[in-house]
Amino acid sequence: MMAITRLDELVRGLQGAPPRRLAVAAGHDPHTLEAATRAAAEGLALVTLVADRRRLEAMAATLGPLPAGVTVIDEPDPVAAAARAVAMVRGGEADVLMKGLVATSDYMKKILDRDHGLLPAGRVLSHVTVLEFPGLSRLLFVADVAIIPQPDVAAKLQIIEYCLHAARSFGVVRPRVALLAATEKVSPKMPATVEADEIRRLAQDGRFGDAIVDGPLALDVAVSPEACRIKELDSPVGGLADVLVFPNIESGNVFYKTATQLAGARVAAAVVGTTAPCVLTSRADDEESKLLSIALGCRLAG
Amino acid sequence: MMAITRLDELVRGLQGAPPRRLAVAAGHDPHTLEAATRAAAEGLALVTLVADRRRLEAMAATLGPLPAGVTVIDEPDPVAAAARAVAMVRGGEADVLMKGLVATSDYMKKILDRDHGLLPAGRVLSHVTVLEFPGLSRLLFVADVAIIPQPDVAAKLQIIEYCLHAARSFGVVRPRVALLAATEKVSPKMPATVEADEIRRLAQDGRFGDAIVDGPLALDVAVSPEACRIKELDSPVGGLADVLVFPNIESGNVFYKTATQLAGARVAAAVVGTTAPCVLTSRADDEESKLLSIALGCRLAG
Repeated sequence: MMAITRLDELVRGLQGAPPRRLAVAAGHDPHTLEAATRAAAEGLALVTLVADRRRLEAMAATLGPLPAGVTVIDEPDPVAAAARAVAMVRGGEADVLMKGLVATSDYMKKILDRDHGLLPAGRVLSHVTVLEFPGLSRLLFVADVAIIPQPDVAAKLQIIEYCLHAARSFGVVRPRVALLAATEKVSPKMPATVEADEIRRLAQDGRFGDAIVDGPLALDVAVSPEACRIKELDSPVGGLADVLVFPNIESGNVFYKTATQLAGARVAAAVVGTTAPCVLTSRADDEESKLLSIALGCRLAG
Repeated sequence: MMAITRLDELVRGLQGAPPRRLAVAAGHDPHTLEAATRAAAEGLALVTLVADRRRLEAMAATLGPLPAGVTVIDEPDPVAAAARAVAMVRGGEADVLMKGLVATSDYMKKILDRDHGLLPAGRVLSHVTVLEFPGLSRLLFVADVAIIPQPDVAAKLQIIEYCLHAARSFGVVRPRVALLAATEKVSPKMPATVEADEIRRLAQDGRFGDAIVDGPLALDVAVSPEACRIKELDSPVGGLADVLVFPNIESGNVFYKTATQLAGARVAAAVVGTTAPCVLTSRADDEESKLLSIALGCRLAG
């Protein structure tokens, strides 16, 4: 398989494969409904809306009837709908979870529930974002921009695994991973550089399989071969990173938001670490981004 | 004065004013020489190269003779040249300092020298970057992307002053300051949000004069009115920030490098906190960026 280099290809690739099954918790708001029904209509997923049937019927007046590939389980209560959608994933009836009109905290609580949730013991809950930049000929797989405030080395090792899984599922055979910091020099004044150095050494022992891991690297030398040349930096990842691992949530979040607000990047994202990918779009995401995130969830579900 | 909204205007504005005096420490490498002589030729600055005269003469064969407005003080030793250039600023013979072919650590050591340097007691050394994004109709003034690893509240208060000084020197009458974090919610799990909240309260007491300060804000709501609308965020800064204060060097550095490498931003930057602005360009900066940084130094020098 050739690596997927544009997010459009992600969608097209899924259209040729058997559709994944998507369970939507409280999918009775127009935005979620539109993205989920579009995913069904375009052949990406078979959709189950665990939702308030009366609200759906009221919306059908303006949005039209539900397309083929969408079924409804009537559950007006959003928290109960989240529990039911999670139970579908747990029970093997769905491959991907998606949040609708339920509070993020309630949605996450059901995912994290020790007895009935989706996070195996010992696993870190995290979040992978895939970005397409206008001026870059490959996709970037990055974490964590949204969930873990200050990941320690143990958490970062899991984050790297999640990113590698995502990159490989897109056909990147030997992903290059940049452990980001503000500089390439290891200094105790910047703990991010010390941690990156530690992880780099662990990676050299083959911990991550077929992958090339280096750090600390600043973002410029991670993505720009020209910056590496000028700085005379000799790194096996230099300028060619597929995966960017951020030292803290502030830097990850700034990257994500600079990318989307100021650099014209397209994105797809999913909650990972769970037994199945969980789509967690926000109101601020546009329709395309929601569809791409569903597509990412389907891809990660294998 | 109308606010300057593009970096070209910064250069043009200086061309109409009396030129500032620029002292260049070890200005005998081609890159520094080219930027400094261009600044002189375009009427931005009167330049003194504290440099190895023999090297300069050798370069004149390819680069041509020095233009009017450039004088040379012969000092072949780079560290001595840095000391001499710093002494010129300290003695009132120069308004702006610039680094040439001297190690950054040696250059900074001379700036930070307690008895002969440029940093007043009690002041924090920091760095201000001014960015022009293709899709944004105003400039952004940001800090700290390069010097202070983890600024505490006291340091951030000074960083804000430096950014405000820069914004005002560009004609922004009442700058809007966003105290960045990964979210708008204050939570002890993310110390950046707690600090931003504390600074916001200090700002409400009028500490920063004519300025509007809010935080914690994520980057999207700091720069995008649309993101504020969708998130129903009511902030006096929301979507209109002129100044971005980063919680740590990793997030600042990621912003700077995403901006320049992936978002097509043009930048100018200077070391601040000192009695005079200090230009500290790196080899990785292009010629235009070096000239713009000289222009920024001249502007900040007043």
